[in-house]
Amino acid sequence: MAETPRATDREGIRDLLETAAAIAESAGAIALRHFRKPLDVEDKSAGEDFDPVTVADREIESFIRKELVRRHPDHGILGEEEAALESDSAYRWVIDPIDGTRAFVSGVPAWGILLGLTIDGACAAGVMHQPYLGETFLGSGPDAPDRGAWLRRSGSTTPIASRRNARLSDAILYSTHPSMFESEASRSAFDRVADSCRMMRYGGDCYSYCLLALGQIDLVIEEGLQPYDIIPLIPIIVGSGGVVTNWQGGDASAGGRIIAAANETLHAQALDTLNSGPLSK
Amino acid sequence: MAETPRATDREGIRDLLETAAAIAESAGAIALRHFRKPLDVEDKSAGEDFDPVTVADREIESFIRKELVRRHPDHGILGEEEAALESDSAYRWVIDPIDGTRAFVSGVPAWGILLGLTIDGACAAGVMHQPYLGETFLGSGPDAPDRGAWLRRSGSTTPIASRRNARLSDAILYSTHPSMFESEASRSAFDRVADSCRMMRYGGDCYSYCLLALGQIDLVIEEGLQPYDIIPLIPIIVGSGGVVTNWQGGDASAGGRIIAAANETLHAQALDTLNSGPLSK
Repeated sequence: MAETPRATDREGIRDLLETAAAIAESAGAIALRHFRKPLDVEDKSAGEDFDPVTVADREIESFIRKELVRRHPDHGILGEEEAALESDSAYRWVIDPIDGTRAFVSGVPAWGILLGLTIDGACAAGVMHQPYLGETFLGSGPDAPDRGAWLRRSGSTTPIASRRNARLSDAILYSTHPSMFESEASRSAFDRVADSCRMMRYGGDCYSYCLLALGQIDLVIEEGLQPYDIIPLIPIIVGSGGVVTNWQGGDASAGGRIIAAANETLHAQALDTLNSGPLSK
Repeated sequence: MAETPRATDREGIRDLLETAAAIAESAGAIALRHFRKPLDVEDKSAGEDFDPVTVADREIESFIRKELVRRHPDHGILGEEEAALESDSAYRWVIDPIDGTRAFVSGVPAWGILLGLTIDGACAAGVMHQPYLGETFLGSGPDAPDRGAWLRRSGSTTPIASRRNARLSDAILYSTHPSMFESEASRSAFDRVADSCRMMRYGGDCYSYCLLALGQIDLVIEEGLQPYDIIPLIPIIVGSGGVVTNWQGGDASAGGRIIAAANETLHAQALDTLNSGPLSK
């Protein structure tokens, strides 16, 4: 087992980021064996919410856990499908084996394999792999010695940057689905921002945050996220120059209500608009 | 110039379908020169609707027109960007150079290059090409001697079929955006169907109709479509075994309010639900 680098060790974080990308890309082959094939879709929830869990979901998390334990047996692991693996290490991996299972079930390549790393609870590195598109988004930061974000496709790795000059009136806003807003108040808050933007579209899942990092869209506003939905994406967003917080402007890594913006000015404008009416939960 | 086949000539329709695919795929290279690059987005509409038209849109339609005129100078052409080319021929090509310009501008590969052929006003052949995914959907019918639909990817062409057994309660419904519904009544009608389905998602553009033909989703319900938005897709939907009509169950080729379903039973169920309340326009 390689010695684990400290967070202040630039090369160490780069190595861990490459490890995460390699594991996610290997897991992509498992996902593609199930994508656009007849699926055993179970309904995890008893109620009217449709929460599909595929065989692929479990196979991928199991594969990623084995790969992580083999390389870093002392690290902790938080995943969607299995119980957390506690550890005394400062290093904890965060897995969402298929983020966007509804997109997956529909045949839409907006889902992704998410793998992030926190050090002492702070986000340090993250990857999103979309195997049907052959794309891997990589990011380091905010708590890494240098921030950056990259898109890897067809063997070529390119630095990416969010839009520096986007303002609210010319922003493109994405959100996965109107039903993700849990109250009339939060739905109205979202609508206030949407009404101030140039364009709003639904349907992005985790891919929306990567499009923001790529400089294609400018805002993502969502509610009801789990920590594993957002932690692996935080380094990609921040590494590209974007900002991601909860709706109060605080730490995003607990999930819940999330706002990601292409730059600080836009983030401040959108946060003001979001909070310009009642927002009780 | 090759002699134009009659609609009853099976090989002739196949040749025209292959011609359409080859032209759309060549146009794909033009689209990729602009996709995910800084765009000159104009606002065609004076009002609050955001209707982006890209340079790519015009270049692609111009390219496709030239290719069609070179091969079939006697045929008519209807396109989104330029005036219709009238003709005495029974054959008329229908072009939507980039269907889903909002997806295009956002960097989302759910847009497509659409090229269809009508003979005496009836849909005979159609293709949808998505160059970033490297996918071409082809279809013949309903007014072709044999119906069929295919997906071409990485040089391999595979027959595709919509889901034969899907019923309303287990259907996956797609629609591009809630704002496309032009009245409270039509929005409520859509919501009635959505509430009866297993899952509803926004954000598909023309790609949703192809996912239906691929057997991945089961229903697409939209409003405000132009003829060129839907005519090239009709042969793909019908060729795969699906049904597409307007909300009264009539001919879809005039655009407007469109419902596509994976099979006849599902179409009847969804149409009943759609029309079970007031639907005045």
